[in-house]
Amino acid sequence: MSRRYELRFSGAGGQGLITAGIILAEAAAIIENQYAVQSQSYGPEARGGASKSEVIVSDGPIDYPKATLVDACLALTQEAADKYSDTIKSGGLLLVDEDFVKAPPQGDFKVVRLPIINTAKNDLGRAIVANVVALGAMVALTGVVRRESGEEAVLRKVPAAFAELNKKAYNAGYDRVKALLG
Amino acid sequence: MSRRYELRFSGAGGQGLITAGIILAEAAAIIENQYAVQSQSYGPEARGGASKSEVIVSDGPIDYPKATLVDACLALTQEAADKYSDTIKSGGLLLVDEDFVKAPPQGDFKVVRLPIINTAKNDLGRAIVANVVALGAMVALTGVVRRESGEEAVLRKVPAAFAELNKKAYNAGYDRVKALLG
Repeated sequence: MSRRYELRFSGAGGQGLITAGIILAEAAAIIENQYAVQSQSYGPEARGGASKSEVIVSDGPIDYPKATLVDACLALTQEAADKYSDTIKSGGLLLVDEDFVKAPPQGDFKVVRLPIINTAKNDLGRAIVANVVALGAMVALTGVVRRESGEEAVLRKVPAAFAELNKKAYNAGYDRVKALLG
Repeated sequence: MSRRYELRFSGAGGQGLITAGIILAEAAAIIENQYAVQSQSYGPEARGGASKSEVIVSDGPIDYPKATLVDACLALTQEAADKYSDTIKSGGLLLVDEDFVKAPPQGDFKVVRLPIINTAKNDLGRAIVANVVALGAMVALTGVVRRESGEEAVLRKVPAAFAELNKKAYNAGYDRVKALLG
């Protein structure tokens, strides 16, 4: 039976969550030769302010590509954290932005708090790379791809003029997790 | 039983096929209140030169989100046309770029030929909007969303500086299909 790992990136529209999902899927599949499916589902629940994208990574073909219970969930907003935390697997992981998710939901999962958006804004000078900071953090937390695979996938995706900024953003997220968890 | 319509956008990496899929899904779900799932699957077969993205649109919840046989398929390259034409439903539709798919595959589906990339390049001056020309053409061919919903979704997605270019690209694709099919 193949190993299968499911992740969700959630927050608000415009935060680049689909892009983060695509980059992770490409890191897993194109760079590491794993299998991956990246998707967004839109229904009545998606028409509020919350936005999400999902990635499934597996070492074998993915027959049922719908993420149901995820191993790891990112939430950049309180609304997204409240909406999606009940679909985290028992023993799973919830990464929240500590400034924007003031009351992380409780459950049978580990909560990790990081100042994701403020790292992008204050350390990197561009709030728009918060999604890449979050991606680096999720890679460090889950190990679903290697550090360098995620970085390479980031650099393949962004325009050359923004390569350095995004590389720094990715590594800032990665390093903050490593510093936090030791 | 709900109506379900599946589309594939295929071609080469860098042609904006994922973006076209996302825009269509958002037109269906966010603007028209349909249900939609947009996805890309990456496996060994995706590591060649071909790239694809898929959209499922339904009037009800989508339980099984994997596109299997599609109702309509876009192919911007010969390789993509050859690779994906055998997953078009009987009686379905294959839209090909007439300059880059010189030998459209034959099967139990209708083939429509349009100069998609050259319309973007010559009429609009920017090959990069070929994906939006293709989107307009697919909307005109399938009717899966209304013309104005697709246009609105395009305009929501692109930066303001490129709004007019993309609006023209979308409508060029739409109008070319209408002129061809009468």
